[in-house]
Amino acid sequence: MKITINSPLDMHLHLRDEDMLKVVAPLSSKDFTAAIIMPNLLPPVTTIQDVKAYKQRIKDAIGDDNFEPLMTLFFKDNYDYEFLKEAKEYISAIKLYPAGITTNSEGGVSSVDASSLAPTLKAMSELEIPLCIHGESDGFVMDREKEFVPVYEHLATAFPKLKIIMEHITTKDSVDALKRHDNLYATITLHHLYITLDDVAGGMLQPHLFCKPIAKRPEDKEALLQVALEANPKVMFGSDSAPHPKTAKEAPGCAAGVFTAPIALPALAQLFDKHGKLENLQAFISDNAQKIYNFKPLKKDITLKKEEFEVPANYNNVVPMFAGEKLSWKVL
Amino acid sequence: MKITINSPLDMHLHLRDEDMLKVVAPLSSKDFTAAIIMPNLLPPVTTIQDVKAYKQRIKDAIGDDNFEPLMTLFFKDNYDYEFLKEAKEYISAIKLYPAGITTNSEGGVSSVDASSLAPTLKAMSELEIPLCIHGESDGFVMDREKEFVPVYEHLATAFPKLKIIMEHITTKDSVDALKRHDNLYATITLHHLYITLDDVAGGMLQPHLFCKPIAKRPEDKEALLQVALEANPKVMFGSDSAPHPKTAKEAPGCAAGVFTAPIALPALAQLFDKHGKLENLQAFISDNAQKIYNFKPLKKDITLKKEEFEVPANYNNVVPMFAGEKLSWKVL
Repeated sequence: MKITINSPLDMHLHLRDEDMLKVVAPLSSKDFTAAIIMPNLLPPVTTIQDVKAYKQRIKDAIGDDNFEPLMTLFFKDNYDYEFLKEAKEYISAIKLYPAGITTNSEGGVSSVDASSLAPTLKAMSELEIPLCIHGESDGFVMDREKEFVPVYEHLATAFPKLKIIMEHITTKDSVDALKRHDNLYATITLHHLYITLDDVAGGMLQPHLFCKPIAKRPEDKEALLQVALEANPKVMFGSDSAPHPKTAKEAPGCAAGVFTAPIALPALAQLFDKHGKLENLQAFISDNAQKIYNFKPLKKDITLKKEEFEVPANYNNVVPMFAGEKLSWKVL
Repeated sequence: MKITINSPLDMHLHLRDEDMLKVVAPLSSKDFTAAIIMPNLLPPVTTIQDVKAYKQRIKDAIGDDNFEPLMTLFFKDNYDYEFLKEAKEYISAIKLYPAGITTNSEGGVSSVDASSLAPTLKAMSELEIPLCIHGESDGFVMDREKEFVPVYEHLATAFPKLKIIMEHITTKDSVDALKRHDNLYATITLHHLYITLDDVAGGMLQPHLFCKPIAKRPEDKEALLQVALEANPKVMFGSDSAPHPKTAKEAPGCAAGVFTAPIALPALAQLFDKHGKLENLQAFISDNAQKIYNFKPLKKDITLKKEEFEVPANYNNVVPMFAGEKLSWKVL
């Protein structure tokens, strides 16, 4: 059995920089047509110059034109209309981080408040620049996303024309919120469709499955699975693939992030196949995103076959999800 | 400022065996008069011969008679009255593990069911042998203890004369259950009075704070703190100090357990002092346990002084809680 995905898209991707960029960028460009590139470098991507230079470094790391990095700016509340109008030509979205909430987010906003952020959000709304948000409070780890839902809803109501992407949602609360507002959308990762907190800390501790937002409860995973498998038009695939060196993941104080980019397509095919929903994979992994972001990606077909694929133990010392395990689908 | 604790007791302690035993036993005997010794060796301690031999190995590791190992058997449902009557002379309690629930618990009971366990529990009740239980279901990691509470309550009701110790409780549900049954008691660890899941996985991942039961929510910690600080007569200190080599804790698949034995007294003094409850420390750390277990320990006074104590980075490659941090009390 085979399936061909037209223009697979990864709508939330960390490519990092320098040596790590050179390791991981080709692994994404191999399987995907385009990806929304996260701007949380050190320092973050906040100027048009930064965007252009980072895009060039990505293209250099890949070495061909068969993959389109969809660039983002790191949200700052001093971005004004004139700046954004110019920036629009170079970016696909702007990513907002509450300060300190995840890797390299120290320069994020100290309070996600519709009135203090109004000038920038109003300009983004007028210019039709989507706003991507890492939506977590600074509360108890299992409550952070739930506590952020009212913020999403407040912004969605205050800026009804602004497309707001709830990034890497992990809870039933978020799925429910998504359905209440026309202008709320979401990315869903591969790993949150597969794991709960049990897989991270229920048996032995598994640092390679430790991520932010942390994997939640079984009923949360079920809610995510439901909208992903039905390819609900409000959701799209975004891996949040976040590479860290093996040594950084396997030490105390392990960094957050699951590395899924090189195994995402076969693992998604396996999951949709298992649930008898292969016919919805195209929409989840490409068509929905094209509609939400209103763009036409490069044409690139990726064919997968139902055949055993043993996931490598690591890619240049970056350990992927399912390392050493067997998946039932492989990319041809 | 100084405080003297008469006969400090650790009512839940893992001393392991062989090399590890030789490292950790002297650290407990230095600060404590006696400890309930967990029987989950490989193979577990299930015969009188095992108990006597393990006790001797502990005594050999310590090298003097200034510490009393209070021995336990690993619960088996084929223990009968005659066996228990003979065993009683050598043990202080019997520890029940649901199979597979934690380190070396594979030989535990497959189902904690009052009727199938009745002959053994009835005999224990008649012989006044306390039953210590690791009370977790095999459900979702944050629900395991809560799901076990009805089992505790069922056993407490079915065997009203049997003293049942809810070991290392971590939730408000357990604290509430404790109050509903005269014959339910509990041990509380040091680490569950200090940490929540946030400390394990809310920032970076901290393997040295990963334990079973896993640390729970802030409101759970508050409920534990309340009964500990008031030295509620139903609760007593049990460290559940569980040493693993540094290399085993700092690798993927990290084993569960926090090593607290050598720093428990100063850390408890710091905590009770901070909350203005130093006057209750003696009861929490010794008197309550003497009443619950109905025994008189060796006389040994340990004096602590309010003075900075820098916790070692490790004790022979076993990393303690608060490694490298400063506590405000020290053992003189």
